[in-house]
Amino acid sequence: MHLLALLEYDGTAFQGFQTQKNGRTVQAELERALTEFLPQTQRRGARVKTVGGGRTDAGVHAHGQAVSFWIEWTHDLETFQRALNAKLPTDIFVRRVVAVPEKFSARYSAISRVYEYRVWNHPERSVFHTRYATWIPELLDVTAMASAARYLVGKHDFAAFGSAPQGANTVREVKRVEVQRVGDEIIFTFEANAFLYRMVRRMVGTLLLVGRGVMPPDEMMNVLQRQRRAGFSAPPAGLTLREIKYDI
Amino acid sequence: MHLLALLEYDGTAFQGFQTQKNGRTVQAELERALTEFLPQTQRRGARVKTVGGGRTDAGVHAHGQAVSFWIEWTHDLETFQRALNAKLPTDIFVRRVVAVPEKFSARYSAISRVYEYRVWNHPERSVFHTRYATWIPELLDVTAMASAARYLVGKHDFAAFGSAPQGANTVREVKRVEVQRVGDEIIFTFEANAFLYRMVRRMVGTLLLVGRGVMPPDEMMNVLQRQRRAGFSAPPAGLTLREIKYDI
Repeated sequence: MHLLALLEYDGTAFQGFQTQKNGRTVQAELERALTEFLPQTQRRGARVKTVGGGRTDAGVHAHGQAVSFWIEWTHDLETFQRALNAKLPTDIFVRRVVAVPEKFSARYSAISRVYEYRVWNHPERSVFHTRYATWIPELLDVTAMASAARYLVGKHDFAAFGSAPQGANTVREVKRVEVQRVGDEIIFTFEANAFLYRMVRRMVGTLLLVGRGVMPPDEMMNVLQRQRRAGFSAPPAGLTLREIKYDI
Repeated sequence: MHLLALLEYDGTAFQGFQTQKNGRTVQAELERALTEFLPQTQRRGARVKTVGGGRTDAGVHAHGQAVSFWIEWTHDLETFQRALNAKLPTDIFVRRVVAVPEKFSARYSAISRVYEYRVWNHPERSVFHTRYATWIPELLDVTAMASAARYLVGKHDFAAFGSAPQGANTVREVKRVEVQRVGDEIIFTFEANAFLYRMVRRMVGTLLLVGRGVMPPDEMMNVLQRQRRAGFSAPPAGLTLREIKYDI
């Protein structure tokens, strides 16, 4: 059965989503749990392989990561979801499991990805916001950041903000950038067909220069055209993969 | 100098506020950091002693814990606060330090304590709410809980909900109980001159019986009069010591 699982995780204790040689990853935990569904006789050496819809680095969270995989299962999907959650650690939770067509890929069938970045914008540090937000004590100018963000929307070469593996194409289509203050938090929302490596965090880092008054909003155009350097990557803890959109 | 420090902590990795023989506690971390302010020659065997304003058990958080202590300090208090924070682990943060009269005690000078309890009331578990809220998937009846909560307000013998050390008086004055839904969270707020051991969590546990429809709201009166058993203590992670009020 070809399935799509929608999952949430707290990225704090993970070295990112993608399986790698060293360190605990979400994908490795998930594949380990899925492999437990194989009959005992097949388990030796075998491993269920998964395809992730969006990349998240070490410390980055997800509310709507999507993962596709093939597994033998003859009962209903609610039972499967419950059994899978029972095999997973408490910092990963499978929110939904749906059957998908043979050709579906969590990665290649995705139309867009939505990421959210949170800043705790308060003069005092807060122990309750260190896990899911970045602390910036100086009051940020939301209007200036929103105005700078408008330059990012559209189909552009985003090489200034990130890289693609082995010199691949760096053109992406950013569909939406929102900057809003909610109480003492500032929430940035980005939607694009796809993002380059570290692109969201680097866009946030650059918007924060504007919010601090270090860079005027319309300089964002020059950053995009690589006539001015982008800001540093904002720290990972503030970032959450919110949603991946599909055409199904 | 006699000082009052207002502090915030994430209780997840602590065995509570109060120093005890085994396990990491907030008070022990704080006293260790304060002791580092003593001149080298005095440090051997000496320890700065602190008085805490409110008790928090293992896993319980604080936004406004208050602690009083005496320490020699000749510079300004902002410098002291910064130096103290630098000596503390990241899950404790000193929000403010003020000078207080000789007779002031964080414990005995307190007029009231405010605790907050959070419930994540959503059909799905959420990895982002396990640290600071208790998950209850069934939709809770907020109106019924608010109505039951009214019986708790006033000066009563709260023996049904908690204990006092060595048979001491169990009469307390509850000044306020609020139950409100904020999005998918339910927030309970309790204010009293003082609380018995586990009293807030046990009141929440009982209100949750009402919210689930297991106990009618007016049965709360019988619980208070010990003609019906109170509910179990609600788990610690949902609880936060919000504020301690003083007359200064």
